[in-house]
Amino acid sequence: MTNPLFGPEVRMMLEEDNLPGLQAFCESVHPSTVAETLSEDDFTVEQVWHALSQTGIREQAAIFEYFPTAWQQQLVEKSGRPQMAKLIEQMSHDDRVDLLRRLSPRVAEGLLRLVDEADRRDIATLFRYGEHTVGALMTTDYAWLPATLTAGQAIDRLRQQAPDRETIYYIYILDEPSRKLRGVVSLKDLILTDRHVQVRDLMVEETEITTLKATDDQEHAAEALAKFDYLAMPVVDDESRLVGIITHDDVIDVITREATEDLQRQAGVGPITESYFDASMYRVWRSRAGWLCGLFLAQMFTLTAIEHFNEMIKKVIVLTLFLPLCMSVGGNAGSQAATLITRALALEQVFLRDWLRIFRKELIIGLALAGTIGVLGLARTWLFTSPRILGDCPLDKLTYVIGISVAGICLWGTLIGSMLPLGFKRIGVDPAIASSPFIATLSDVTGIMIYFSIAQIFLL
Amino acid sequence: MTNPLFGPEVRMMLEEDNLPGLQAFCESVHPSTVAETLSEDDFTVEQVWHALSQTGIREQAAIFEYFPTAWQQQLVEKSGRPQMAKLIEQMSHDDRVDLLRRLSPRVAEGLLRLVDEADRRDIATLFRYGEHTVGALMTTDYAWLPATLTAGQAIDRLRQQAPDRETIYYIYILDEPSRKLRGVVSLKDLILTDRHVQVRDLMVEETEITTLKATDDQEHAAEALAKFDYLAMPVVDDESRLVGIITHDDVIDVITREATEDLQRQAGVGPITESYFDASMYRVWRSRAGWLCGLFLAQMFTLTAIEHFNEMIKKVIVLTLFLPLCMSVGGNAGSQAATLITRALALEQVFLRDWLRIFRKELIIGLALAGTIGVLGLARTWLFTSPRILGDCPLDKLTYVIGISVAGICLWGTLIGSMLPLGFKRIGVDPAIASSPFIATLSDVTGIMIYFSIAQIFLL
Repeated sequence: MTNPLFGPEVRMMLEEDNLPGLQAFCESVHPSTVAETLSEDDFTVEQVWHALSQTGIREQAAIFEYFPTAWQQQLVEKSGRPQMAKLIEQMSHDDRVDLLRRLSPRVAEGLLRLVDEADRRDIATLFRYGEHTVGALMTTDYAWLPATLTAGQAIDRLRQQAPDRETIYYIYILDEPSRKLRGVVSLKDLILTDRHVQVRDLMVEETEITTLKATDDQEHAAEALAKFDYLAMPVVDDESRLVGIITHDDVIDVITREATEDLQRQAGVGPITESYFDASMYRVWRSRAGWLCGLFLAQMFTLTAIEHFNEMIKKVIVLTLFLPLCMSVGGNAGSQAATLITRALALEQVFLRDWLRIFRKELIIGLALAGTIGVLGLARTWLFTSPRILGDCPLDKLTYVIGISVAGICLWGTLIGSMLPLGFKRIGVDPAIASSPFIATLSDVTGIMIYFSIAQIFLL
Repeated sequence: MTNPLFGPEVRMMLEEDNLPGLQAFCESVHPSTVAETLSEDDFTVEQVWHALSQTGIREQAAIFEYFPTAWQQQLVEKSGRPQMAKLIEQMSHDDRVDLLRRLSPRVAEGLLRLVDEADRRDIATLFRYGEHTVGALMTTDYAWLPATLTAGQAIDRLRQQAPDRETIYYIYILDEPSRKLRGVVSLKDLILTDRHVQVRDLMVEETEITTLKATDDQEHAAEALAKFDYLAMPVVDDESRLVGIITHDDVIDVITREATEDLQRQAGVGPITESYFDASMYRVWRSRAGWLCGLFLAQMFTLTAIEHFNEMIKKVIVLTLFLPLCMSVGGNAGSQAATLITRALALEQVFLRDWLRIFRKELIIGLALAGTIGVLGLARTWLFTSPRILGDCPLDKLTYVIGISVAGICLWGTLIGSMLPLGFKRIGVDPAIASSPFIATLSDVTGIMIYFSIAQIFLL
């Protein structure tokens, strides 16, 4: 996405104190673009507030929600509290809880005291849920109606409550006063039907709706919504009372965040959820140092493995030269298989019960890959090994050793790479761990053993 | 998502030929769940058709869309053509083009001849666009109105066209007969306003709408829709005529697919878009063998690097033992940095112009990581190196060499890992390549040079 660059224009308007221009900018451009322009172009916090305050509180809230977290925090600190409290009342229910979570408890409390009663209660409710739960993602800002209305009456009622609602495309039908979920009706169906039809006859019954629990994992919500192509899904408590809804835009954020986490884990980085510059040095160091040290410790087993073959290495020193080459094949082949299987598990393309089918498929592919890479290894060794480095080692024997080793290590890497994720899943460990550098390290150690064992057979 | 298991129940209904039961199953359960049950539980294609044919053609189409691609192909082959043609007329416009693309041209043509004129023309239009373009993802099934109506008239018109439309929550305002996009109005605004207000006064003008081109990359569409939290976005041609719309559910699919591709690339797998068992052996072999061979060839430079230090290795054989350990540190640290920067670039958290800020941040973090891992290396070497493998090499010198080497290689890996994605982007190459095993291989070669160079300083 390249955006038209409003930065210079806004800067000029700020310098000339062109208030109508700033107002027009805030109101005619998409809130996301306004936030992007103001947060990216070296404006001071005071300048941002000056620009924002030219428009109404509703627009301010819409723009504010699109600022990066670090900016939001700075903006809060530099704003008058009563002004900020009003803005919080206008923000969407899920985003404002997110913001308050990130402020220092002292600042958050001070702000909350100025927010009106109903909003404060609502914030307190959402605050209760843990960070990766559906409860923390949902909004309480849904449209609802009792079942006793006709379609016409329902539309009239919506006219009154809708301007405040995040979405009115699904309307939830609740029992009063228990707020038990009875069903859901889409705005489309309400519009298309005769005004006199009962909402009760139009709605999809609660028993046929997929609902979420506030304590569910957000990933679960994302999967469900993506699977059924819904715009929104209802969240209920243990007594099936409606407590909120999850909307399609929240889910896109969750899917993007999950993808980031998967990519990070695959590179051996503990999850960093903040954007790159927002994450503190300490935070980034910690989430990298943990893995780096862990892998370093695991890699020490290569020492033990090589030590075991120390006598042979001394005799046939040319073996050392080919060691990194042979080792790396296992890590690469293993990562490939592990990533494919882990992703297929996550997308529910394969299941634990398919392990034998997977094993067979990977065995055949592994053999094909081993053949390919084995021939390459044979050719390289036979054709390009300079006699100077060979020492006493006969070229033909070395060629066999390298060819067979890289083929064997490749096959072995493929098989453990494909089976480990399934094994992890079986014992209840996140299979994604297997697609991390963990598998490469494991392949390194076992690769060394295979390499030197084969060398021992041919050369001793 | 765990689903209630309908499999056994459906099997029993098929055996008892319980037609009303099968009909109830197809009509009361979500189409996605019906498709999942029928495709997963070892049913034959004939049984699936028998179950599906108990319900109307509209429901059949809704269920059919959720079958995996391989199943859809089988179902087409085993169906009567006229039956299948009717089903295609009912399918959503984007999904049916997807299906026809995957059928053999002969089968697709045979089917198309039986589809009615209007649908055939529509299919031909969408067929024109390349596979990863917005055109191939969009649907032509949008709701539209001329600007000359009042809100009340607009709603009445929608009542007539809406049952067929994929979404009516945004209604596009077009000039007749040119079909030029004039603006967009949301169903919400239509409902909330007075019936006598002109649609013209209610709509968001074309100049203020973000539109897509049919030839844009799908990823571009996904980013735009996710960024602005829209339900749908209009797709226009060069004369700004509306040619289709992209909806939120398509975008979730694109985001998931892109994440899969990124994960695969990070593991050195050419993109495999089919699900695991759907992808043919040859296809999987090819997309893995390419990378595997490429990396193997690149890794051969390690041979040259080690050869260069051959004399020293012969003298101080204990250096060989620590070689894999030292090498791996560079690959791991490099992958971490490369993945973080690549992802931050993709999510537009950082830009090319930030390179100096990134360099500074990574330099500090790299130094901290190098310090951590260096101390670990020192400790390991000093405390646990058995005199037996030391040979003539003094322990204190070896300790310095290992400690300084792992620290230096770690810092070096971090810096090239963070700068390479930016360099690639600068010269117009996809920066994601840098977060692949490519960086690990590069680190291996340079790591060997650093290791042995430091050894040379201390030990010779």
